[in-house]
Parts: sequence; structure tokens; C-alpha cells
Amino acid sequence: MKLYGYWRSGATYRLRIALALKGLSYEYAPVNLLKDEQKSPAYLKVSPQGLLPAFITDEGAALTQSLAIIEYLDELHPSPPLFPKEPIARAQARQIAYAIACEAQPLQNLRTQKYLKALPGFDDDAMRQWLDTWVGGAMKAVDEMIGETGGAFCVGDAPTLADICLVPQVYAALRFGVDLSGLERLNAVYERCVTLDAFKKAHPDEQPDAVKA
Amino acid sequence: MKLYGYWRSGATYRLRIALALKGLSYEYAPVNLLKDEQKSPAYLKVSPQGLLPAFITDEGAALTQSLAIIEYLDELHPSPPLFPKEPIARAQARQIAYAIACEAQPLQNLRTQKYLKALPGFDDDAMRQWLDTWVGGAMKAVDEMIGETGGAFCVGDAPTLADICLVPQVYAALRFGVDLSGLERLNAVYERCVTLDAFKKAHPDEQPDAVKA
Repeated sequence: MKLYGYWRSGATYRLRIALALKGLSYEYAPVNLLKDEQKSPAYLKVSPQGLLPAFITDEGAALTQSLAIIEYLDELHPSPPLFPKEPIARAQARQIAYAIACEAQPLQNLRTQKYLKALPGFDDDAMRQWLDTWVGGAMKAVDEMIGETGGAFCVGDAPTLADICLVPQVYAALRFGVDLSGLERLNAVYERCVTLDAFKKAHPDEQPDAVKA
Repeated sequence: MKLYGYWRSGATYRLRIALALKGLSYEYAPVNLLKDEQKSPAYLKVSPQGLLPAFITDEGAALTQSLAIIEYLDELHPSPPLFPKEPIARAQARQIAYAIACEAQPLQNLRTQKYLKALPGFDDDAMRQWLDTWVGGAMKAVDEMIGETGGAFCVGDAPTLADICLVPQVYAALRFGVDLSGLERLNAVYERCVTLDAFKKAHPDEQPDAVKA
């Protein structure tokens, strides 16, 4: 298996956590988003739409979309499971994952920020308000959801897809200065996750393409 | 089962298609987004974050996030399946669904457009370019993916989660004037879907809260 990704890409980070939780080994091929390598002819042969991450399965199939790849890995390697057993709890784990993946990440990722910064008059204050509204708002909703479903983790007492999405999102939110200080339930789950070996191994700073400050 | 939704909400439309494909009956409770009814005290009791759609299960659990609810329905009512059988094909169906749900819809939905329109200098031309970039770009990517995986539908020869996401997205794209004319594979699947009874029944214009032009 081979993972094309970028150390700071949130979607790649999700996939690294899932692979580490499953104990699966893979080849890592860095693609530098800051150098637009995702649009290079070589990479477009791997992922025709230039999407990151891309994942090459053992059979040679190329998949994109981190959440689709994680569901695939969970179907093929069911242990340890990345979802609770009970159907409502499974829906709750996906609910938190999608609140992050469909409501926070798309409005905060590199290409969206780049587009906004190029708009006339869209200054640092405008970006601050944009990120606080969308990322801050989604994080507050997730904190409330964890209040309803959480145990030691987002849903119950084992890491699920929800935690796999939460940790990269908190990492990004902190990086972009979004205030998460009042979100106690979310912060408690985040702090617990990052002590686990799988989450440590998947951290951006631990990747071969990481750029140290 | 009870569905809180809005006739033109793309996420509600997805869920209606899934319910219709499964042949499941439910109570429909309209929530008017244009009147901000999703923020009313009555609705916040149903969905504390004011998210639409919300779905009340037979056991009384309240779920949000259309894709989480659709996965739940597919687990509980497996026939007809909303995913292909083979793992790679399942991943491909989710891949198309998430390319729409995580890359097109969040940048085009009502609340995002409202926010952008309130920015100084963000005029009709700026909105046109925004929608063409994000929605047009995602639709082009989906068209290419269908080229790799499609048969009569997005992935293979039966409707899946991918088609459930595609149809509301095309409906929205056309409504907002995004040019889809060159995307032949995408348009062919869309045209085939909308002839099916389940998709007809789920169409916004067929809902009790539809406002006729």
C-alpha cells in the first residue's frame, strides 16, 4: 500500500491515524502542496484530479477522499474497528466526522484560504472572522455533540472515525488561531487522543516531509 | 420516523432519495431556512446545533448529517443496498459522494453564499467566479471519476450513495447557473436518475413546503 500525502494536509493526517490504529504499514510518498506538486504531470498520473491524499491499494487501485479510504480500510481490516458496534452510535460517530469534514475543513483548507486572500479587501481581520465563524462554529457544534455521545473519546470509550477527524481539525484550528478555549469536552478528547501511540505516529511533525520551524 | 427538512436543502434532498429508494415511509416536518426557523427555540429542541436535516429514528434518537443518516438507514434496511458489493467499488461510490459533500456543497450552500454576499465588494461577478471555481471544479472532477467507474449510474449499474449525492448537487448547480454543459458522463447519469420513481418523489418541487415560481 502506498500513501501520497503532505505532512500538514488534514485529510492525509486522518488517513495516517487510521492506518496507525489498524497497525498497517505502507509506503509514504510526499507531495508538496506549497510547490503545487499535486498538479505536476507525474502526480496527475496517480490522481487525475490532483486530489490529495491518494491511496494505492495492494491490488493497485488508486483511491482518493480520505473518508472513503478509511471506510475501505475498515471493511478490509475490521480489527480494531473504527466504528462503535451499535447502529445509532455508528451514526453518531459518522455525524461528528462529517460535521468536521463537510462543515469545517472545506472552508478552512489551503486552497480556500488562498482564494479568499486574493479577493480585494479580504484582509487578516476578514480571515479571522471567516475562520471563527466556520471553523469555530463547527468546533462548538462538535463539542456539544461530544457532550451527548462522548465517553473517553468522541463516541464511547474507544477511538472511532470521529476522533480520527477531530484531531487533525483541532491541529488546524490551533494553527490558524481559532479560539477553542471554552470547548472543554472537545479539548479533553483531543488531549486523550494525542497521548496514544497511533496518533503520535501520525502527527505531521513526525513525517519525513515535515519542515521544522 | 420523522424527517425535519427544507424542500430546497440539498442535504434533505439526499435523504429523501435514500428513503424513497428503500421504500421507507416517514413523517415530513418542514423547517423554513429562509425564515431562519432552524434557529427557533422549537427546532433547537430537536437539533441543538440548528442543523438541517434532522432525522428521528423509530427509537426516538435524533440524528443529523445526511450522509451519516443514509449509512444508518442502509445498515438497518439493507435491501436494496445503497452501495456496490465489492470493496473497491464501495470506496469509489463514497469517493464521489464525498467529492460532492465535502468539496462542492459546503462552498455553495445558503449560509456560505449569504456570508460572502455580505462581504464588501463581493458582487455578482465574484459569486459567479466562486461558484464556477468550487462547484464547477468539483463537478468536473466527478465527471472524470464517473468516466472511470460508471455504468448506467455513477458506479456500476445501480444507484448508490454517489447518485444520491449527485442529483441534488446538479439541481443546485443548475439553479445557481454553473455551466455543466461539457460534462457528458455526469449529465447522462443525472438524466437517467431523474426518470426513476424514487428520485421523482424526492424532488424539491414535490414536497409540501415547495414554493412554486
